[in-house]
Amino acid sequence: MKEITIVKIGGNIVDDSNALQHFLTAYTKLEGLKILVHGGGKIASDLALKIGIVPQMSGGRRITDKDTLKIVTMVYAGYINKNLVAKLQAMNCDAIGLCGADAHLIQAKKRAIETVDFGYVGDLYADSIDVVRINQFLEMKLIPVFSAITHDGLGQLFNTNADTIASELAIALSKKFQVNLIYCFDKKGVLQNVEDPDSVITTIDNSNYQQLKTAGVFSAGMLPKIENARVAIQRGVSKVTIKKAEELLDFHAGTLII
Amino acid sequence: MKEITIVKIGGNIVDDSNALQHFLTAYTKLEGLKILVHGGGKIASDLALKIGIVPQMSGGRRITDKDTLKIVTMVYAGYINKNLVAKLQAMNCDAIGLCGADAHLIQAKKRAIETVDFGYVGDLYADSIDVVRINQFLEMKLIPVFSAITHDGLGQLFNTNADTIASELAIALSKKFQVNLIYCFDKKGVLQNVEDPDSVITTIDNSNYQQLKTAGVFSAGMLPKIENARVAIQRGVSKVTIKKAEELLDFHAGTLII
Repeated sequence: MKEITIVKIGGNIVDDSNALQHFLTAYTKLEGLKILVHGGGKIASDLALKIGIVPQMSGGRRITDKDTLKIVTMVYAGYINKNLVAKLQAMNCDAIGLCGADAHLIQAKKRAIETVDFGYVGDLYADSIDVVRINQFLEMKLIPVFSAITHDGLGQLFNTNADTIASELAIALSKKFQVNLIYCFDKKGVLQNVEDPDSVITTIDNSNYQQLKTAGVFSAGMLPKIENARVAIQRGVSKVTIKKAEELLDFHAGTLII
Repeated sequence: MKEITIVKIGGNIVDDSNALQHFLTAYTKLEGLKILVHGGGKIASDLALKIGIVPQMSGGRRITDKDTLKIVTMVYAGYINKNLVAKLQAMNCDAIGLCGADAHLIQAKKRAIETVDFGYVGDLYADSIDVVRINQFLEMKLIPVFSAITHDGLGQLFNTNADTIASELAIALSKKFQVNLIYCFDKKGVLQNVEDPDSVITTIDNSNYQQLKTAGVFSAGMLPKIENARVAIQRGVSKVTIKKAEELLDFHAGTLII
């Protein structure tokens, strides 16, 4: 089975041009097939504020009204995505910027309303991802760069959680590939003590997960990341790591989820 | 030689949801290989105004400073491009949204400063367009949808005239295909008298071009369109038509440039 590495970067890296440049330099050195998934970050919130839209959050997730969807489509699928592609191209990395609507690659459905209506937020489901098409791009030696915008196939775009896109891509591709999924962010891994940047938990497995969760070690932002990672492993992904972007090439760095 | 149709739509259609829906319905019925190129329109100017950037124009062309480049990248390559793709996908048209940086498809260089510095405006040159790559997408039965954002291969994105992208794509593809280039806009064709919407000039050729130009029949916005069209014909494109978007499928409508 061929190997593929899926790397997800979040807003902390996208927003920081220095960190981004370090990350991209490391990313281009990553051997073999690869995919990049990026989140958004402050740029979308800043733009929304500038034009008078107040970002609404619920449980760490953005509520996406019509205007917010417009902004995230502009910022994620346009500004961030195309700048990442241009930077990668400058480093001889033949990137192609994609959202879920492009070539019908990632289909989603509007998140069901339970207590909160998240608006234009799309959730993935079984067969959301067109693995055959993505494989065609990989065979063309292209490096897909995904923004977290999806569509329903009926003309509606959706805002989708970038961590989820990364884990669902990893799960879908694990049918064809040995998948290595890496979540990059601005800390050295999942921290035992948020005050101590070096207190990296090297491994989270079934035995310590519940204990750490109960002890409140995982922050509100980290918990869904770890849950995504655990689901990914259960569904066929070979390896999931949460690590600092700058340590991308250090295979011993970060927190390994097993 | 296989045929391909390249259709360019401008801001007038993109801004008008009714006209856009009519156009897209017609576009999906267009048989054979096809490419769509879209311009921007008022959305970018409106957003710029909202956040306090005053659009600067010179000779009908936008001057693109750093902030304006950010906005056109967001609006053209993000909002407009991905919404067009989602709408086409909803009509079973397997579209893929692309800018020039994606897969290194369209490279440009910063416009040389003569009297005006246009800022981050990119001009195309010989071999700007990767015909081999575009052909790979067409062979995958994908319909490329191009925004008018290009890059220099060194990490810099550029704003490029969408009419020029369309004509240069047509010229580049004419080495491999019999190319039919169609500029769609909100009038029935090039008008003899701008006050009379039915006064369509059916043909512009070498014999009447200079005469019409001297007589001031062509508006400031129309002149570069016609010049692009004439260059395209001289450089191998089979057919160029300027017509109303709703009349896309009427092969006798509009102004034929020969």
